[in-house]
Amino acid sequence: MSARVGVIMGSQSDWETMKLACVILEELNIPFEKKVVSAHRTPDLMFEYAETAIARGIQVIIAGAGGAAHLPGMVAAKTVLPVIGVPIKSASLNGLDSLLSIVQMPGGVPVATVAIGTAGATNAGLLAAQILGITDSEIQQKLIDRRERTRQTVIESSESL
Amino acid sequence: MSARVGVIMGSQSDWETMKLACVILEELNIPFEKKVVSAHRTPDLMFEYAETAIARGIQVIIAGAGGAAHLPGMVAAKTVLPVIGVPIKSASLNGLDSLLSIVQMPGGVPVATVAIGTAGATNAGLLAAQILGITDSEIQQKLIDRRERTRQTVIESSESL
Amino acid sequence: MSARVGVIMGSQSDWETMKLACVILEELNIPFEKKVVSAHRTPDLMFEYAETAIARGIQVIIAGAGGAAHLPGMVAAKTVLPVIGVPIKSASLNGLDSLLSIVQMPGGVPVATVAIGTAGATNAGLLAAQILGITDSEIQQKLIDRRERTRQTVIESSESL
Amino acid sequence: MSARVGVIMGSQSDWETMKLACVILEELNIPFEKKVVSAHRTPDLMFEYAETAIARGIQVIIAGAGGAAHLPGMVAAKTVLPVIGVPIKSASLNGLDSLLSIVQMPGGVPVATVAIGTAGATNAGLLAAQILGITDSEIQQKLIDRRERTRQTVIESSESL
Amino acid sequence: MSARVGVIMGSQSDWETMKLACVILEELNIPFEKKVVSAHRTPDLMFEYAETAIARGIQVIIAGAGGAAHLPGMVAAKTVLPVIGVPIKSASLNGLDSLLSIVQMPGGVPVATVAIGTAGATNAGLLAAQILGITDSEIQQKLIDRRERTRQTVIESSESL
Amino acid sequence: MSARVGVIMGSQSDWETMKLACVILEELNIPFEKKVVSAHRTPDLMFEYAETAIARGIQVIIAGAGGAAHLPGMVAAKTVLPVIGVPIKSASLNGLDSLLSIVQMPGGVPVATVAIGTAGATNAGLLAAQILGITDSEIQQKLIDRRERTRQTVIESSESL
Amino acid sequence: MSARVGVIMGSQSDWETMKLACVILEELNIPFEKKVVSAHRTPDLMFEYAETAIARGIQVIIAGAGGAAHLPGMVAAKTVLPVIGVPIKSASLNGLDSLLSIVQMPGGVPVATVAIGTAGATNAGLLAAQILGITDSEIQQKLIDRRERTRQTVIESSESL
Amino acid sequence: MSARVGVIMGSQSDWETMKLACVILEELNIPFEKKVVSAHRTPDLMFEYAETAIARGIQVIIAGAGGAAHLPGMVAAKTVLPVIGVPIKSASLNGLDSLLSIVQMPGGVPVATVAIGTAGATNAGLLAAQILGITDSEIQQKLIDRRERTRQTVIESSESL
Repeated sequence: MSARVGVIMGSQSDWETMKLACVILEELNIPFEKKVVSAHRTPDLMFEYAETAIARGIQVIIAGAGGAAHLPGMVAAKTVLPVIGVPIKSASLNGLDSLLSIVQMPGGVPVATVAIGTAGATNAGLLAAQILGITDSEIQQKLIDRRERTRQTVIESSESL
Repeated sequence: MSARVGVIMGSQSDWETMKLACVILEELNIPFEKKVVSAHRTPDLMFEYAETAIARGIQVIIAGAGGAAHLPGMVAAKTVLPVIGVPIKSASLNGLDSLLSIVQMPGGVPVATVAIGTAGATNAGLLAAQILGITDSEIQQKLIDRRERTRQTVIESSESL
Repeated sequence: MSARVGVIMGSQSDWETMKLACVILEELNIPFEKKVVSAHRTPDLMFEYAETAIARGIQVIIAGAGGAAHLPGMVAAKTVLPVIGVPIKSASLNGLDSLLSIVQMPGGVPVATVAIGTAGATNAGLLAAQILGITDSEIQQKLIDRRERTRQTVIESSESL
Repeated sequence: MSARVGVIMGSQSDWETMKLACVILEELNIPFEKKVVSAHRTPDLMFEYAETAIARGIQVIIAGAGGAAHLPGMVAAKTVLPVIGVPIKSASLNGLDSLLSIVQMPGGVPVATVAIGTAGATNAGLLAAQILGITDSEIQQKLIDRRERTRQTVIESSESL
Repeated sequence: MSARVGVIMGSQSDWETMKLACVILEELNIPFEKKVVSAHRTPDLMFEYAETAIARGIQVIIAGAGGAAHLPGMVAAKTVLPVIGVPIKSASLNGLDSLLSIVQMPGGVPVATVAIGTAGATNAGLLAAQILGITDSEIQQKLIDRRERTRQTVIESSESL
Repeated sequence: MSARVGVIMGSQSDWETMKLACVILEELNIPFEKKVVSAHRTPDLMFEYAETAIARGIQVIIAGAGGAAHLPGMVAAKTVLPVIGVPIKSASLNGLDSLLSIVQMPGGVPVATVAIGTAGATNAGLLAAQILGITDSEIQQKLIDRRERTRQTVIESSESL
Repeated sequence: MSARVGVIMGSQSDWETMKLACVILEELNIPFEKKVVSAHRTPDLMFEYAETAIARGIQVIIAGAGGAAHLPGMVAAKTVLPVIGVPIKSASLNGLDSLLSIVQMPGGVPVATVAIGTAGATNAGLLAAQILGITDSEIQQKLIDRRERTRQTVIESSESL
Repeated sequence: MSARVGVIMGSQSDWETMKLACVILEELNIPFEKKVVSAHRTPDLMFEYAETAIARGIQVIIAGAGGAAHLPGMVAAKTVLPVIGVPIKSASLNGLDSLLSIVQMPGGVPVATVAIGTAGATNAGLLAAQILGITDSEIQQKLIDRRERTRQTVIESSESL
């Protein structure tokens, strides 16, 4: 089955974080593709990726980048698909630079930004699923079931304090 | 036609910002509802709003709040619909508190966060449209046309420097 | 004897910090209960906890949470008991996000916020005791005695430089 | 009736903010006193104020200060009454300096910190009332009624969007 | 004479700041062109601009942008000419977002970043001149003369205190 | 010979940093005393220390503290001797809280603030010596000689790159 | 009588702030000189100023600068007199850049940093007086008297709340 | 062949970072010199270095420094050669102090600032090459070739996810 979600990242080193988005997509059985696409080192590839995404059947793009993180915003500039941006925790400023570079987009081109680091990557996968779930009741039901399981886990964890 | 997007905000004073999301939805002819729903002053109403959203036909929720901004995240905790969070510019910290309160959600419950203030509100409207546009080709085409008009405006503005 | 202080936290991993509040309450012989209650993963449980607290005899609630920390503020929205918020040190932003999410509450619903991390958890226990001590002279005397012991410890520590 | 809450501030110019705490105490009919007590300009007066507070019948102290805001923490060091700290919005750093100077107290001496500026002052008054309300059912009921009125106001404000 | 410096900006509203770079270039008689080129609203135009710059005789590019400021870095990704980035002061975060989005480029693609706002725009013009001055002794001499005049102005200003 | 410089710190754990001030004072043969004096845990001792400092022959006070660091400012409020404040690197906010709590003193009571952490402690020792050196030519000459040795060390270090 | 304190500033526009230091020195009858000396625009003058300060009878230097504020630290590098640094409130970052540029000096060359803006300038004047007061009992007594007057003013201001 | 690029740093400990600039210059076969030149510990040497740079054939200066990082700006004040500033990651504030001290130069004296830490040092080398490449087509071609190789590496890295 062809990919519905495209997971891209600015550098191979971002995989450690971004794989958590893929774990969620796999868990929910949502077909996805994953690639390293760098805004600064492969700008033409990035544009081509964004331009052809709709035609290839992609419905949501998840893009992770760190530092002066331009990948999510530039992909968003080249497609009208929803783009989810994951700020990678950076070496010096702990991802504050990544966050501001991704979230502070000017009016006209939104990026759906999630939390810095691994929590953000997990949530990027879930947000993609929630978006697809609007019109895909099977995915939506899986998300509802997942929430219920999470709820149980919290309640059980309370016993072990 | 019943609302597809729910636009909520924590306080009446947030309307100055949040109306920009509504301007976009009107422009794109997407039916929406708008309400003041406060996480801290009307918590039960907030939960009820979130719990009933799917059944009422809402597909995307846009929630704006400032300071210790809990509305987007708490609504997200009570529905599996995608929730877009708009950080309102706050009196003391210029919206940095609003931004961090909205975007730094723990793994499990995502909020699709946009920029602080009016640019963010505009983009919340556009992001909602992009999400609906995945399966609504009319909206998607309108977004493509809008981008083209924006492009022309930029090029023309260059003449006037 | 039934609990006078409720110690709750957003995640089992917060226990490492929050147990310091419990150490103080045990030291001062103040009965307390402790639970994991997550704003985002168990929202209904959180509301029920807050709504029933007064009836169950709870007099002060201590709530610890990290990142987009909504637990203290949402509990405060559902009870008129004093709620003490402990910002847990977060992975990326060192608890600055937790602090702002907890302290910057809008007018109407206060959270008594203490320092980030373990110092804050210790102080949450002491603040709860100081609050109870207003009308419980035994607790108040224990706090006065504790201060005196601390004073002695500081003076002695000066010898060892 | 003698004062139950002491409202102090580091400078006359803080009154503009701190009067909002007094507005709440008046509304709830809680007797209070108000004074300018400066940590840096009247240190002995500050110590005397704190040392004698319990004997004078004060049950909660609200202290507002800006910049390197030492008043709340130093008063807290000299009494075991609960001290609520209000960070005044400062000229250069918008109250971030005030907030950190007040909230980041070391383990042993807590300050119950509220939001920067006027929202914080309002909430300081409410928090004092919530603390007194633990054992004063009249105050507690007034707070419950006030919440209900606030709830109605929010719902009505929604009509006017 | 054909332009040696290209001055571009993400939005017409940036002109208020960016014209200060042009004032310097005019003062030093360095031919330049100026355009609005938006990373997010005219991405293809931006790439074309950067790709053709060397062939058109451009030797230095000055790019100003605000918020999630991607223009300088993306232009830098598409040319090996030196790109000077000017962080425009932004509405909410005073240009801190602009600065971090521009300066925190990953290894491989540098942007020569100057100060936020008008001082930065002036310095962008001067930096371009200093770069050209390496091999253009006339420009270099003008810069030396300008420094001397500035020095005199400072000394004279001291009289008027 | 009686102490000319008083080195105090808020906690025994600050000694790791503050001993660097003492290393300088020993190197320059300036008599000093060192003590743990806590603003929050030994407030009366702090006041007594500050009040009696002039009479005991102390000429400069160096005070180190972390977090909500009130020691330097409160000592400065109780003496007209120059007080040098050393912001100790804190657990959560890396000393930014310490720095702002020390440096942002209101008009009327200055604290001579140095850098966060060990560099600051070293410089506190040197600043005390520079202050004494104004009227003590032997100390001043030692400082001049020390600078010359430092200069040589830098030049030599350049060889080893 | 020849100047004992040198008040310098990086730009004529800093005078609005720095004159507050001069107000204090005049009030205390301490002879001073004032000059615009720019680290970046008159670097040689700055070095000459610092190098000749001791010989000219200067005992304390007060240096104010904003943004990338290098004046206090560079003067400190060229003299062993105590240098007091005043961070001028800057246009974009409210003086946080000025503060960090002045206070974060490396071990070896201290700058006695005071608060951002006018409070800092006032305190720079007072700190210079406190330093001179160590060996000038007349100045020290004036400072003690000034504190007493300030104390009275605070107490009186309390009446007017 | 005589050095075209001067690489200087404020301390021997900066070499760990700054050597990455030298790695690039070696790779591109651009002759350079490297030295420790401290703004605060060897101010006269710094001035001499900057004043003589043009005469010695230097065309671009790369200067790295941390904390209150004055080296790049002060060198820039003494030469009209382009100066590239590398903010070294600092112990307490992760290089935010270094960045602001370097980039926030006043109008008149630009510093071409790159990212904090090793990415910045690498980019300083590349930026120097891009500047020289304007009139040195061999260097410019090497940079174009390098970009192509980097592009290939990214594409290949995508396979290994």
